[in-house]
Amino acid sequence: MAVESCNSKISADDLQTFCVAVMENVGVSTSHATTTAEALVMTDTWGVFTHGTKLLHGYQKRLRVGGLLTEGEPTIVKQNPASAIVDGGSLLGQVTSKFAMQLAIDLAKNIGIGFVGVRNSCHFGAAGYYTWLAASQGMIGVSMANDVPIVAGPGSRKAILGTNPISYAVPAGKHDPIMLDMATSTVAAGKIFAAVQSGRPIPDNWIIGPDGLPSTDGSLIPDQGALQPMAGHKGYGIALLIESLAALLTGSAVTWDVGSWLFGDLSQATDHGHAFLAIDVNSLIPLEEFHSRVDALIDQIHKAPKAEGSERIYMPGEMEWERRRHALAEGIPLPEDVIAKLRELAEEVELESPV
Amino acid sequence: MAVESCNSKISADDLQTFCVAVMENVGVSTSHATTTAEALVMTDTWGVFTHGTKLLHGYQKRLRVGGLLTEGEPTIVKQNPASAIVDGGSLLGQVTSKFAMQLAIDLAKNIGIGFVGVRNSCHFGAAGYYTWLAASQGMIGVSMANDVPIVAGPGSRKAILGTNPISYAVPAGKHDPIMLDMATSTVAAGKIFAAVQSGRPIPDNWIIGPDGLPSTDGSLIPDQGALQPMAGHKGYGIALLIESLAALLTGSAVTWDVGSWLFGDLSQATDHGHAFLAIDVNSLIPLEEFHSRVDALIDQIHKAPKAEGSERIYMPGEMEWERRRHALAEGIPLPEDVIAKLRELAEEVELESPV
Repeated sequence: MAVESCNSKISADDLQTFCVAVMENVGVSTSHATTTAEALVMTDTWGVFTHGTKLLHGYQKRLRVGGLLTEGEPTIVKQNPASAIVDGGSLLGQVTSKFAMQLAIDLAKNIGIGFVGVRNSCHFGAAGYYTWLAASQGMIGVSMANDVPIVAGPGSRKAILGTNPISYAVPAGKHDPIMLDMATSTVAAGKIFAAVQSGRPIPDNWIIGPDGLPSTDGSLIPDQGALQPMAGHKGYGIALLIESLAALLTGSAVTWDVGSWLFGDLSQATDHGHAFLAIDVNSLIPLEEFHSRVDALIDQIHKAPKAEGSERIYMPGEMEWERRRHALAEGIPLPEDVIAKLRELAEEVELESPV
Repeated sequence: MAVESCNSKISADDLQTFCVAVMENVGVSTSHATTTAEALVMTDTWGVFTHGTKLLHGYQKRLRVGGLLTEGEPTIVKQNPASAIVDGGSLLGQVTSKFAMQLAIDLAKNIGIGFVGVRNSCHFGAAGYYTWLAASQGMIGVSMANDVPIVAGPGSRKAILGTNPISYAVPAGKHDPIMLDMATSTVAAGKIFAAVQSGRPIPDNWIIGPDGLPSTDGSLIPDQGALQPMAGHKGYGIALLIESLAALLTGSAVTWDVGSWLFGDLSQATDHGHAFLAIDVNSLIPLEEFHSRVDALIDQIHKAPKAEGSERIYMPGEMEWERRRHALAEGIPLPEDVIAKLRELAEEVELESPV
């Protein structure tokens, strides 16, 4: 992740204030705007700029024409002692997802585990925001979402599943939470566009071409090819687990019926599905003892012998937590594409750009 | 999967009878022997011969010298309404794991979801056996296990995690359950041994050599290299989720403290950890409606355009269910290495070999 020069840095607070103002400007309540902005800004502090405030430009377009609704609240349409289904009412995905993960956490407390499925939602940004919420409350959290097909399966000529992201977070003691947030494709489409822009060929396990076979020509994406699932049939299988929990089980749109959150008819609901799981650590093992066990494993992995040329072995999420500390102390080093999107957005909503 | 000639086929019933007799012969109760044999024989009918009755030779050695105990029952050491921890009492992993998954299923009924962690267990065979148990009772099942480190992480010079398998199964209506059972390494060690035997180099994402860098020399395994995690940091991250749920949370041995079930001191308990999850479909969506939704997705994927040279797009588990139907109708086509192990076993326990 390239660190930009100092004058492109922005404080998390200023970015938060701007994002809230943008959403209020198009009719979103202060409460929903604050929740959404917190998720986006936190993601930027992690250095995951593809899923941070850059997204707000697209969200705002949908909010204006009805593909995202500005009014309403997520509603629980089915509830059991340890599980529930939430209807997102076509609200901002972050609002519904935070509500759903908090419900899973509340269900899990004392009884052990909670599962909440979501339908009628939209893009939810970084899956890791919700699992961090769980970890910060002593829970092991898991989050998932389905999306429009852009990933092939073994033997398919075209895309049959979305990039279907999954995240988990595990609370630690002296260390930061272990936190993974990944798509189930080999790489994100953004990496392919970057390779094309710089004229580089790509490895043969990133995409398939129009014949359904592996290709090293990144320019085939998005129109003539599809992404490959990570690790072949394994990534395909995990993407189908996510489709099962986030969509088949929740009543949301499935694969080809999901609407694109960024392209297509911005006035129509996308009906994305999500799934959230929270496991209450303390109900199974004293939280302090668990923290010690997690810390000990992290220490052991950190101390393990390094490969030639490697100086550190990172835990999942460790780079993101380090970037966040830097970002909170020195400002978020927004890359140029994010700055351009924020400026475009500021102009559209007639606010002063924060960068 | 090569299909052997007819005279190497054996009926599932005959194989079951032999396996039960072997275990009874070394002091295992009929009930525990039956459970373990059912798991092993079912796995053979799926054509997953690395995790079927071939394992019994090793189990029997441990049972004789105390590294697996013949007496006792798995015990619930902590129970909440929706979660529990089970101590496996160093019994056969299949006995404890079936008990634990059934407990997760029973907990999930009506309240929505159940999680059961296991400590003080051993090798549990094919992770898919337990998720099939859940799917056959209208549940979405997930199972996991940790194991002795033989897989590297990004930047490590040596192994830091086990192959940490994970399985899930989703019940369908007219179709077989969707069922994935995979290790979190790129490939299993067996595939590397096979390449070495046939003198072939291996792809550079299968293993690392003694310097911790990718190698195409399979002969470095197991002594001088380590397996690579599937999809790099993604597989490493998933393996750590499994270690967290199956070991850190359950109180079982973690990574380097786990005993090898096959090598090392066969008289010592291995203290493997497992995790089982069951989600009660019907408590969230009528089971019939869910079945229809799953069937519709399977039909859609089956009908999707095929890649050049591909005739079918398989669902996870579909090949295994087809093999099982053939095996039940015509006998299980055991490969030579399994037959050799069963004959060796028959001699050791002074029973007639079934093949």
